[in-house]
Amino acid sequence: MSVLVPPGGTLGILGGGQLGRMLAMAAARLGIICHVYCPDPDSPAFQVAGRFTCAAYDDEAALTRFAAEVDAVTYEFENIPAASAALLARLKPLAPSAAALDITGDRLSEKTFLRSLGIGTAAFRAVDSLEDLRAALDATGSPAVLKTRRLGYDGKGQAAIRTKADLHLAFAAMNGQPAILEAFVPFVKEVSVIAARGRDGRIAVYDLIENEHRNHILFQSQVPARVAEGIQAQAEAIAGKIMTGLDYVGVLAVEMFVTKDGDVLVNEIAPRVHNSGHWTLEACLVSQFENHIRAVCGWPLGAPGRHSDAVMQNLIGEEADDWLRLAGEVGAVLHLYGKRAARAGRKMGHVTRLISRGGMSRAP
Amino acid sequence: MSVLVPPGGTLGILGGGQLGRMLAMAAARLGIICHVYCPDPDSPAFQVAGRFTCAAYDDEAALTRFAAEVDAVTYEFENIPAASAALLARLKPLAPSAAALDITGDRLSEKTFLRSLGIGTAAFRAVDSLEDLRAALDATGSPAVLKTRRLGYDGKGQAAIRTKADLHLAFAAMNGQPAILEAFVPFVKEVSVIAARGRDGRIAVYDLIENEHRNHILFQSQVPARVAEGIQAQAEAIAGKIMTGLDYVGVLAVEMFVTKDGDVLVNEIAPRVHNSGHWTLEACLVSQFENHIRAVCGWPLGAPGRHSDAVMQNLIGEEADDWLRLAGEVGAVLHLYGKRAARAGRKMGHVTRLISRGGMSRAP
Repeated sequence: MSVLVPPGGTLGILGGGQLGRMLAMAAARLGIICHVYCPDPDSPAFQVAGRFTCAAYDDEAALTRFAAEVDAVTYEFENIPAASAALLARLKPLAPSAAALDITGDRLSEKTFLRSLGIGTAAFRAVDSLEDLRAALDATGSPAVLKTRRLGYDGKGQAAIRTKADLHLAFAAMNGQPAILEAFVPFVKEVSVIAARGRDGRIAVYDLIENEHRNHILFQSQVPARVAEGIQAQAEAIAGKIMTGLDYVGVLAVEMFVTKDGDVLVNEIAPRVHNSGHWTLEACLVSQFENHIRAVCGWPLGAPGRHSDAVMQNLIGEEADDWLRLAGEVGAVLHLYGKRAARAGRKMGHVTRLISRGGMSRAP
Repeated sequence: MSVLVPPGGTLGILGGGQLGRMLAMAAARLGIICHVYCPDPDSPAFQVAGRFTCAAYDDEAALTRFAAEVDAVTYEFENIPAASAALLARLKPLAPSAAALDITGDRLSEKTFLRSLGIGTAAFRAVDSLEDLRAALDATGSPAVLKTRRLGYDGKGQAAIRTKADLHLAFAAMNGQPAILEAFVPFVKEVSVIAARGRDGRIAVYDLIENEHRNHILFQSQVPARVAEGIQAQAEAIAGKIMTGLDYVGVLAVEMFVTKDGDVLVNEIAPRVHNSGHWTLEACLVSQFENHIRAVCGWPLGAPGRHSDAVMQNLIGEEADDWLRLAGEVGAVLHLYGKRAARAGRKMGHVTRLISRGGMSRAP
């Protein structure tokens, strides 16, 4: 395995949000300089990066200059244009690969890929017309969820279909974009696996995470997940198959449903560091952010074991106004992302509460 | 207690070395923007700070502009000119105070202050002439160490006196600067205490640290310190007296000797975050860097307990060339400071090895 970005080298990061910010800070600790590329002049990651470029994701001249100034490229944000990923991949080592972006960037190709590996998912059908939708609903049954194939996150671009009466409204909500109908999965738990794969093919898997969403946004993640024995092994095997199948380099998150029968069905893949893995910053010696940096820079991966149990909660919108109370709470670690405006639904920070498995050395 | 620097506010940091860098990263995690001031254009802290000023420490115009752009000022580096500290203190809240800098910036005033609090130190005498030195040596006995009163660190500005024959050479080594002769302390352990004091007067003390120096530079720090029962309590009481005596705000380190009789004598005070406290980044939920930021910004202090045992080793000069092997070592957390040239004796990074008191959740 050859090192692509040594200490003193420069890693390019596409995307300047909180994930890019935490990636840049992990890289800095290893002596790697980050160059963050983002169209938003107020990007949180610009505040902690050695260099930055503020330009559009399809600005080929800016992308070319950016590539010339870095040793390798990665991203915090998977929805960059395919042509931009292809351009960068021609100029500098890009990880995860444009192919991994391509497959995971489209819900239909992602689920088709998962099925090809023998991995369980909800029943699904492509929907390009109202006729497709009617036929798809007959196949999946209701309730079901209609989603745009591309660019959805945190519940955006989704419409629930409980009865046939919802059909027209749901279709209209897609705004003419290619869509996918997915059967609703009556899950008992939502879990995720965060794993890293190095350029040498080695894989490091973090402990299984139990997630709770509220209003389609991640509310809380906790480890250990409270699931039956064997679920962690199933989930790890799935993540391993996906990463090997994609010849993946970097950190990847797999969101899954656990059904009451103990089946594990993949909901979606995020080809990047993930909100449900933020607890690894405090509970592990090598966080998801550091392992992503290590993987894409060609370093050996770090061990993913945790020394503490953890519960991570997002601070959404004005919840971050409670920072002073949270700063005073023993056992809580506060993260604020440096975003100016606390818009409703915007992730402003998070707090991780740790419970040391061996206890703390002294009372507060 | 009123908050001086809220999230989104700007903290000014004098000094752009690795301590400033780690302070800036701790501040960033709390949503605080750092403006680093340092004369060195290659300052490691510039790479992770939202803003920076590259100017001399006695450039009053630059200091005034810097003060106008920040909400409060602190430093990683105690040897700034007294006039600069006084200027900044007139313009913005400065912590630790100019008075604390003044006392701890001179070995003679520091030791005199310690004695006034009833805290034990080596026997010492002021030395301004060769005659002073002869008389001082009669008082302290030999061996003894002659040190410049100001600006020494890592063994610089020091000369050992084993016999009277060393006297002239030692005096010449002071280059005419005011000096202090200190009796050599036959210690059995070198220890340090890192403590933080908030603007509300509350104190948080980290676990006692056992240190080993090589060639006058810190080689290794470990917790827990292997000392007799009661030493931690003595050391904590000393740190508390010092901080209260200085009406101190921020993190302070006290380096001490433990003698074979179990006496604890203070060697020196560092009015800042300290190399022997780097292990707090991984072994505690709130590191020395974060607690310094919290204190100077007027936030509540975080609890200083540790969840893991730790051994920190510095990477000096070309020892940092071993980064790839260290990155692959399970249980080791690698820090590289982003310095370009690995000069002999230069601190290039450090590695902290953790042993979780509760064990890790999974094999690597």
